[in-house]
Amino acid sequence: MASRKKTANANLESMYRVFTAPEAPQSTLSQIEDYISKNLAGFLQEHIVAVERDLSEVEKDFADSGIPDKPMFVSEQAQFLLDKLVSNSVHTAAPSFIGHMTSALPYFMLPLSKIMIALNQNLVKTETSKAFTPLERQVLGMLHRLIYQHDDAYYAQWMHDPLHALGSMCSGGTVANLTALWVARNLAFPEEGGFKGIRREGLTRALLYYGYTGAAVLVSERGHYSLKKAADILGIGHDYIIPIPTNDQNKMDIDALRNECIRLKKDSIRILSIIGIAGTTETGNVDPLEDIADVAKEFNAHFHVDAAWGGPTLFSRKFSHLLKGIEKADSVTIDAHKQLYVPMGSGLVLYKNPTSVNAIEHHAQYIIRKGSRDLGSTTLEGSRPGMALLIHSGLKVIGKDGYELLINQGIEKANLFANLIEQHPDFELVTPPELNILTYRYCPAEAQAALKVASQEQTNKINQILSRVTKSIQKTQRERGKAFVSRTRLNPAVYGRSPCVVFRVVLANPLTTPDILTSILEEQRELSAEPGIATELQHLQTLVSEVRQATT
Amino acid sequence: MASRKKTANANLESMYRVFTAPEAPQSTLSQIEDYISKNLAGFLQEHIVAVERDLSEVEKDFADSGIPDKPMFVSEQAQFLLDKLVSNSVHTAAPSFIGHMTSALPYFMLPLSKIMIALNQNLVKTETSKAFTPLERQVLGMLHRLIYQHDDAYYAQWMHDPLHALGSMCSGGTVANLTALWVARNLAFPEEGGFKGIRREGLTRALLYYGYTGAAVLVSERGHYSLKKAADILGIGHDYIIPIPTNDQNKMDIDALRNECIRLKKDSIRILSIIGIAGTTETGNVDPLEDIADVAKEFNAHFHVDAAWGGPTLFSRKFSHLLKGIEKADSVTIDAHKQLYVPMGSGLVLYKNPTSVNAIEHHAQYIIRKGSRDLGSTTLEGSRPGMALLIHSGLKVIGKDGYELLINQGIEKANLFANLIEQHPDFELVTPPELNILTYRYCPAEAQAALKVASQEQTNKINQILSRVTKSIQKTQRERGKAFVSRTRLNPAVYGRSPCVVFRVVLANPLTTPDILTSILEEQRELSAEPGIATELQHLQTLVSEVRQATT
Repeated sequence: MASRKKTANANLESMYRVFTAPEAPQSTLSQIEDYISKNLAGFLQEHIVAVERDLSEVEKDFADSGIPDKPMFVSEQAQFLLDKLVSNSVHTAAPSFIGHMTSALPYFMLPLSKIMIALNQNLVKTETSKAFTPLERQVLGMLHRLIYQHDDAYYAQWMHDPLHALGSMCSGGTVANLTALWVARNLAFPEEGGFKGIRREGLTRALLYYGYTGAAVLVSERGHYSLKKAADILGIGHDYIIPIPTNDQNKMDIDALRNECIRLKKDSIRILSIIGIAGTTETGNVDPLEDIADVAKEFNAHFHVDAAWGGPTLFSRKFSHLLKGIEKADSVTIDAHKQLYVPMGSGLVLYKNPTSVNAIEHHAQYIIRKGSRDLGSTTLEGSRPGMALLIHSGLKVIGKDGYELLINQGIEKANLFANLIEQHPDFELVTPPELNILTYRYCPAEAQAALKVASQEQTNKINQILSRVTKSIQKTQRERGKAFVSRTRLNPAVYGRSPCVVFRVVLANPLTTPDILTSILEEQRELSAEPGIATELQHLQTLVSEVRQATT
Repeated sequence: MASRKKTANANLESMYRVFTAPEAPQSTLSQIEDYISKNLAGFLQEHIVAVERDLSEVEKDFADSGIPDKPMFVSEQAQFLLDKLVSNSVHTAAPSFIGHMTSALPYFMLPLSKIMIALNQNLVKTETSKAFTPLERQVLGMLHRLIYQHDDAYYAQWMHDPLHALGSMCSGGTVANLTALWVARNLAFPEEGGFKGIRREGLTRALLYYGYTGAAVLVSERGHYSLKKAADILGIGHDYIIPIPTNDQNKMDIDALRNECIRLKKDSIRILSIIGIAGTTETGNVDPLEDIADVAKEFNAHFHVDAAWGGPTLFSRKFSHLLKGIEKADSVTIDAHKQLYVPMGSGLVLYKNPTSVNAIEHHAQYIIRKGSRDLGSTTLEGSRPGMALLIHSGLKVIGKDGYELLINQGIEKANLFANLIEQHPDFELVTPPELNILTYRYCPAEAQAALKVASQEQTNKINQILSRVTKSIQKTQRERGKAFVSRTRLNPAVYGRSPCVVFRVVLANPLTTPDILTSILEEQRELSAEPGIATELQHLQTLVSEVRQATT
């Protein structure tokens, strides 16, 4: 690419120019930008190197800890980024990248992002965001309505009420979950009598005043790791995130939940929140939200739903019933950078009750003054960009019907892939898709047959081998760079909770075709024939024969 | 602008097209983008309406809580955004916008942001960020070195060490401060003997085990509001953020600090952290960091420096001495979206000791596994965008010399403005600039003279009037839209801590000229002659006469 060299001398004049002079049309950077505008997929395809370099190799290009004295030419930096950074990035938009929750973006998100960045608003206060604040309140209202379905009058009353908020905008689901639990914790220990509230006096005095020995959060064993982090941050402690066992569909066992609640109550531990998951990260399952709502009510606990992934399923008339009960949640997390197809860095938490947010409200003298419209008084973060512009545009340009199609095709494709796996002699479907996520593993038909009759000890041994093989296939496939599925470890009920490494697939990219899925499976089968795996498979063979002999 | 209409029917075909077909070159959105690329200042100038509309009016454009069923044309949404959102945005890049810390961006940040968004990496794990992870570690290393100035060998050892980190990337300074205090809190209550550590057992058991009745954080009364929020979140409670009085230069009073530490120790309250500020939000002052470091050492407290604003002063050979002692801090907050001139949404916290971060480390099965290079194991947030690309490019393209110039000209311009104010008969400089922030207020020379001899009661009365006038001028000037200064409330020592509303000015935009500053002051003087203020000034006149009579 051509490089129009900008000045590399730091004088005030040249610093001004950095702020005033646009990139020349023929500069390296302008050409990259133009390429992205005209052909995003082509740009990514051309510049991202498919075959994975070892990260310790890549690190060598980012080894210098010194900040250069002299300014560098923009074109030089652009070329460096293209050669060293872009080339070794992950092609998250590729239709064969089905391993994680980051997917392709609609084209229009790119120029809109440019408007957002050009305006460089700060949503903490209206003095640096003006119309972006009503816009953000509208976005919170739109998604609140998607969940809670109140009427126009309700939103006319609450949406722009400066003293309350229908939700808090966040940089992602982790902060959204943390914010929800922060609200739950503070609501549980309000100001009363001689006690000035947990916000002022802290957790320890709160427990003392209200006569508890601890405070707990209950969530299924499939809960997102961010909840443990939240419990740490909030001062509750990991050990008070109580994992509730799941049934064989990875859904919370309600009897176990109730028993645990009874135990906690007996031990004088305050149940801050019970969390239902709408789309578990690893398996995409939905907890029995209605039942959880009942238990939460019974034990006076805040009912939170982590719908970071599954929330947009509500757009689908065909599948929204899977989330039944979500409208009873006191708070709901949704990630816009997941199934709303917004760029990275946008999550939100919605509150059933617009006054909930007052439990975490805070003010300052120079901004977010009491009674102001500033949204910074009700968010965990301070300065924040105007991501609401992108969510708003997604909701308008894609619309309910568009999101419904995206959701439906994802779930249907997951079912199609599940069929492919079940019909394939070398793979075993471990968790069938409820939404658009499934897991499976390498497990030849004869091993599947043997596992049906194997002892627990034999099962464990077989699963150990299958786990190593699955892990090896996953890593090699990733390194080859044609396709990517992720992996995790599950303890399936059917195998007596014996640990199994599984492939994990997330089908959110609308451009992923059935042919691509077939070829991903085919590549995995080929990789199972690699020499490195041969010894493992011999061991497997021996174990399978043993089981067969023992049971005939 | 021309509008090439895209389909408004939600069928799968058209949804695919949203992901595959670029905006046409003549579409509304492409034209906006092109305008921004060629003439950012012109675009903002043309499309942002100067005169402020009342926010309750603006809200009417964002009143609909329904998500439309049918997709909307991209061009229609783009036009809506231009007419209703952009027009009522804040021109944060204007040279006459000197009220807040959000300023102009260097041109090259825009196309680079587009690359960042096009790649849509997720920095939580290398599987969705690859080279961005080493890049982020390099950025953390570069800024760590700016503060702690270790040699190449040190960074060769630590920068890319997967088991440690030199800092945590955040969405902004609030989360950076919260993260630092989270680290400080967890380091104070480690695993030991029968105690499994605060992370597992929580704050209450930690205090019990270690024999404390509470845990406190000490910061000057000029501390950022985010610290109270952090104390709330961490379960410590607002009341345990102990505000230390400041001297008449808004710097922490070290004797008061030491006395407070002694008191807390006597009360068996664990001092988690003492915070020094390098650039207070309201007045831009720097605490005596070396002295604070000594006290922190004496009382075994984590020494944190909130350099969200002032950190980049380290680039200036002329002014870096103001931050002397920062290299003794256990952790330091820097906001990249402030004086590193990166777009909104980028802060970081650096740790003196690369092992500090282990106090907040966490893992999961499917990502951020133990021993992985994933940076998500040491951040408060989960999914995060690749903002490191923009910080890296700023550091390279602007360079040390460039940032030095930007810092120097800001501080020098603040001094120039301070002179203008002091020479002006109608204004009083309240806090002279130490960095590039100052405050002043409307206060005619005769009132200034009267205040020198007035009783405390008279002083309070005069200040009440001056506060109302200053507030009124500030609001009207903002509404007129030619210029913007912010306001806050201070309690100057010189007036016996009587509350004063002041104008607050932040001089970070290199395009702000002395002429602009002169005209801002001139407009304020004109506004003081507005009819609404006349009654206030009559009262002032009466009070001033009373003081004069009483003292002659």
